[in-house]
Amino acid sequence: MPELPPHIGIIGLGLMGGSLARDLVAHGVRVTAFDRDPGLADFVPDGIHLVASAARVMDAPVVVLATPVNASERLLTELAPLATAEHTLLDVGSTKANLAAHAEGIGIADRFVGCHPLAGDHRSGWGASRIGLFQGATIFMCPSASAAPRAVEIAETVWSGVGGVVQFDDAAEHDRRMARASHLPHMLSVALALTLRDAGVPHRVLGPGGRDVARLAGGSAEMWSDIVVQNRPALAQALERFDRQLGELRRAICDGADDEIHAMLTSARAWHAD
Amino acid sequence: MPELPPHIGIIGLGLMGGSLARDLVAHGVRVTAFDRDPGLADFVPDGIHLVASAARVMDAPVVVLATPVNASERLLTELAPLATAEHTLLDVGSTKANLAAHAEGIGIADRFVGCHPLAGDHRSGWGASRIGLFQGATIFMCPSASAAPRAVEIAETVWSGVGGVVQFDDAAEHDRRMARASHLPHMLSVALALTLRDAGVPHRVLGPGGRDVARLAGGSAEMWSDIVVQNRPALAQALERFDRQLGELRRAICDGADDEIHAMLTSARAWHAD
Repeated sequence: MPELPPHIGIIGLGLMGGSLARDLVAHGVRVTAFDRDPGLADFVPDGIHLVASAARVMDAPVVVLATPVNASERLLTELAPLATAEHTLLDVGSTKANLAAHAEGIGIADRFVGCHPLAGDHRSGWGASRIGLFQGATIFMCPSASAAPRAVEIAETVWSGVGGVVQFDDAAEHDRRMARASHLPHMLSVALALTLRDAGVPHRVLGPGGRDVARLAGGSAEMWSDIVVQNRPALAQALERFDRQLGELRRAICDGADDEIHAMLTSARAWHAD
Repeated sequence: MPELPPHIGIIGLGLMGGSLARDLVAHGVRVTAFDRDPGLADFVPDGIHLVASAARVMDAPVVVLATPVNASERLLTELAPLATAEHTLLDVGSTKANLAAHAEGIGIADRFVGCHPLAGDHRSGWGASRIGLFQGATIFMCPSASAAPRAVEIAETVWSGVGGVVQFDDAAEHDRRMARASHLPHMLSVALALTLRDAGVPHRVLGPGGRDVARLAGGSAEMWSDIVVQNRPALAQALERFDRQLGELRRAICDGADDEIHAMLTSARAWHAD
């Protein structure tokens, strides 16, 4: 396996960026990082070299944007003028098509590789970051047709180097699948939370099952509203499909169609076990 | 604390009944049990005395019905003629009002105590049962006004004896709260599973977040269709409220009302953290 690049920059030391920084330092990589929260200086270990601006992170030839998707879009614009032919930029966002189009639009598509590590949970921030987060995790890589093979190879080295299992994917197809498999469940968790709040049911009275479904509602509002905005059409479609399905289940419940309810629960269980 | 009864009968050795049996045996209680699956004889440890019928479990003065709610209803009818003045019967179902009314109707309400341990997960069956399942778990006890204080006390002793934290509750109020806090999340998980199945998204491609929300879809179809049937009106109302809430979120997403989306995610997060 090719070696990790010797010097990597990271913008945003949240769950993703923080965990990546910890892993890279443990592998002997020199890490230069920027986070908008200057207070992090008190918590980040010495191995991670904190700098005062995103631009300063471009001292590293490989830069990972580990920020909410809309912020990554703004950062790409800000950093593009500083990117030399040797730079490689990657991100970690849950949506890939818009950012790839943006990179194309600002003329940096050859040096940008869209990535999405399927790791972490509803917790966020440096405090949630940890060594080994990417170990065994699927990392979707969606390089556009314009991406230089060199840049793609470097991105792959970064993720493999911290234990990720890289899977190449088409950006649009990735976003549609994520709308169903990830963004839809998140919205259900949020709508459940708001329903329970309005009904005066506090989170602490939930049993293990209710807590499972409500867990994602605890996620970062900033990160997730970006995702919703970025993936609007695919998410709207996924919500429409869910709405139809829940409508059928609800009708069966209200009509007392008990055999039909049993059949639906059985199908759901079979899907879960498959 | 009063001591556990020396001899307890259990009908149904699934997650609940099996775990209770394991705990009781560990505490030196004599356990007589029946399960409809005769094959369990090969797995159940010697301390649990398996008998050939539910009626035979009535040899014990305290009998726990650890079966799906509809089965518990049938069992109460079957066992009522065998119940002496010294018998105490309890159950473990997720819905309490209907079974209490049934116990009243068949003249056994003085010796029946409806109980609901808030423990376990989507797994079911003897294979999922384990020592310590009730340790620290909330146990809702919803004795009707007709229940004899002696019976209530015995039921409380059983649950405290295996580490449960008993909380008394009104049956109807319990069922309404469970419709929102437990049965609604379960239905969302099922509807998500069916939506993903129809969209050709297999369970194995889900990330940690999607898996959280989809987890309950893996639960027992038999147990959960009983719960739905038993708690129909309250569940229908909870589904209606959820539907309204998801509709608002969906509208905000489709309309591009990004500030509103951010506000909803923030509210959901605040509820989760509270």
